[in-house]
Amino acid sequence: MNLNIYGVLEKVRERKPVVHHLTNWVTIYDCANIVKVFGASPVMAHAPEEVDEMTQIASALVLNIGTLTVDFIDSMKIALKSANRKGIPVILDACGAGATKLRDIKTAELLSAEKIDIIKGNSSEIARVAGEDVKTKGVDASAVSGDMEQIAVQLAATRNCTVVVTGKEDIVTDGKRIFIVRNGCDMMAHIVGTGCMAASVIGTFAAVETDYSIASAAGLCCFEIAAELAAENSKGPGSFKKAMYDAAYNLDKETVEKMQKITQK
Amino acid sequence: MNLNIYGVLEKVRERKPVVHHLTNWVTIYDCANIVKVFGASPVMAHAPEEVDEMTQIASALVLNIGTLTVDFIDSMKIALKSANRKGIPVILDACGAGATKLRDIKTAELLSAEKIDIIKGNSSEIARVAGEDVKTKGVDASAVSGDMEQIAVQLAATRNCTVVVTGKEDIVTDGKRIFIVRNGCDMMAHIVGTGCMAASVIGTFAAVETDYSIASAAGLCCFEIAAELAAENSKGPGSFKKAMYDAAYNLDKETVEKMQKITQK
Amino acid sequence: MNLNIYGVLEKVRERKPVVHHLTNWVTIYDCANIVKVFGASPVMAHAPEEVDEMTQIASALVLNIGTLTVDFIDSMKIALKSANRKGIPVILDACGAGATKLRDIKTAELLSAEKIDIIKGNSSEIARVAGEDVKTKGVDASAVSGDMEQIAVQLAATRNCTVVVTGKEDIVTDGKRIFIVRNGCDMMAHIVGTGCMAASVIGTFAAVETDYSIASAAGLCCFEIAAELAAENSKGPGSFKKAMYDAAYNLDKETVEKMQKITQK
Repeated sequence: MNLNIYGVLEKVRERKPVVHHLTNWVTIYDCANIVKVFGASPVMAHAPEEVDEMTQIASALVLNIGTLTVDFIDSMKIALKSANRKGIPVILDACGAGATKLRDIKTAELLSAEKIDIIKGNSSEIARVAGEDVKTKGVDASAVSGDMEQIAVQLAATRNCTVVVTGKEDIVTDGKRIFIVRNGCDMMAHIVGTGCMAASVIGTFAAVETDYSIASAAGLCCFEIAAELAAENSKGPGSFKKAMYDAAYNLDKETVEKMQKITQK
Repeated sequence: MNLNIYGVLEKVRERKPVVHHLTNWVTIYDCANIVKVFGASPVMAHAPEEVDEMTQIASALVLNIGTLTVDFIDSMKIALKSANRKGIPVILDACGAGATKLRDIKTAELLSAEKIDIIKGNSSEIARVAGEDVKTKGVDASAVSGDMEQIAVQLAATRNCTVVVTGKEDIVTDGKRIFIVRNGCDMMAHIVGTGCMAASVIGTFAAVETDYSIASAAGLCCFEIAAELAAENSKGPGSFKKAMYDAAYNLDKETVEKMQKITQK
Repeated sequence: MNLNIYGVLEKVRERKPVVHHLTNWVTIYDCANIVKVFGASPVMAHAPEEVDEMTQIASALVLNIGTLTVDFIDSMKIALKSANRKGIPVILDACGAGATKLRDIKTAELLSAEKIDIIKGNSSEIARVAGEDVKTKGVDASAVSGDMEQIAVQLAATRNCTVVVTGKEDIVTDGKRIFIVRNGCDMMAHIVGTGCMAASVIGTFAAVETDYSIASAAGLCCFEIAAELAAENSKGPGSFKKAMYDAAYNLDKETVEKMQKITQK
């Protein structure tokens, strides 16, 4: 399939969109870094008094519930409303959904409060958001019985949004089309922040591409090509992450077109 | 002494325990990384509404008071109670104990609230927890008058727990046995996060080894061997930390057995 | 101009001052790292119950409003008062000033509450603090109409403090003297944390040098020389940051004296 993945990255680099985050405290640094190395401008602000205004500056909003508190979710709701008012894409990373009741309740509240454009998670998180009875083991993916593609398509159709399931093969669907991204490498599972960064990259790409399924697939593709390139030049998770930032920053047209593994069903 | 240090690391890699943290905001990223590179699964969650439930998923609980607030300590108490109910090990990193009255008071509250299995700190922090009149200079160790081994043994005996004093020579004691770990290198003092990561590693190893003094000594030993290997391949603190993650990830039996410097008194 | 830049760095390494921070959650890790690699001791503590006491241990106080909340600013005010009482320098990084009303209001509150010795920002942030009608785009600099040197001099004179404007050419002024620092490199704009680290470095140098304009210029100079050295040995933002920490740690007299580009107007 010949999607113009690189074209989306090029638009990111040209427009340098501001990508606003209300994200978790563990990987906030990685999220800011990955947005920056792809050429965009990360912002993180969560005070309820300013979050509406800050969102109005941004071209995309990334919400990540990894270290949620009740107050923090309240700030997310303000940001979400602001993003909807401005018409910018909202990405929800359902980080750790299913691990606790609080996460389930707050995820549901966010989803019912306003329009969320892209829901992103690993297989167990997405299954949980879709209402499956799956118990996640912290923030890493657990086994899900059931066809993830079908679960994702149904969730996307019901919610009228794009659903992204990350894994060895990423699934991106708007309820009709299904894109499968087969880039990436094993080392991604051995570093902290891969999942959270993926959501930030998707937000960054959605800031410049209004077809959010294409944006999501393109973002994942570029991020994972950078990871593949990094794996070739690294001896472990420390050098891998460093090399991944270098690779993401240096990605060129030829490399992306040669390496992209994306199919549409 | 021929402790099977590598055997504990092997169990970490096989079982991939979830290690729950309520830790500080400066080094939270390093703590998550070091747990991950040793093969376990880090989780950080602090909302009072979910902290009990999240702790029930975990195999160890790490508490670090580095950037404490009153509310955060309240969440720690819930987590602590939950950990005790489940019977998983609790590690307290007395980060900055002695620097302020709040730290002294809150450390005492945590210690009297429920059972803490391992207390970890540098010499001045442990001396302070043991009731010595020492004033710590921020989060780095200050000079302590008095025999640290004796102070540690007494604290361990009184509290019926394991006490870990990090330094050039680490002291690990349960009040009866004393283990001395002589691995490590000078560069560890020139990066941020060494002490906090040590606590996370101890938690990770205690998640799979019920003799907590052995677990603590084994964790420190592996962490510090990785640091020694990293020092050989680095030109400063930046490349050192990267190389340390690589080395921790790649540690093999032969290297650990050849390099471990641990004695029992 | 032959300022003894290296002499200030040498004093940092000898005295190892404690540099207390109330800073933002995105780059807190970088701020701690850069202080550490220059040879000082970073501390971050924000609980209102201990922030006065912790400030009394420190030799400089760095305030950064990047992820401000109302409560956090209240803790800053306590720290600020404590720093003034002790007579240690206070650096305010007006991170994101102009982006929201909250930032403008809280910056003004901090400036009128007590004495701030050094105000630091990029051109749009400083213009905003100086009362210019400029709208900043998140945390990255926007265009400012008007002569930044003049704006900075006026602000410094009015506030009776040192003003630092970072950019391709950094401006440092106490309202009378103007120092221009021409070190640094393009890659600094492609990583997260450059601006925040600059404030932490300035704080570190001001902890040992009572002429705060000299301290600020010297800190920027050393930091940016490290960046220049790193750029020579890196392939992208990942390896650049690693190499920058290495270079800052290893800076020697000869290199600093050869590379420093600083002029006084």
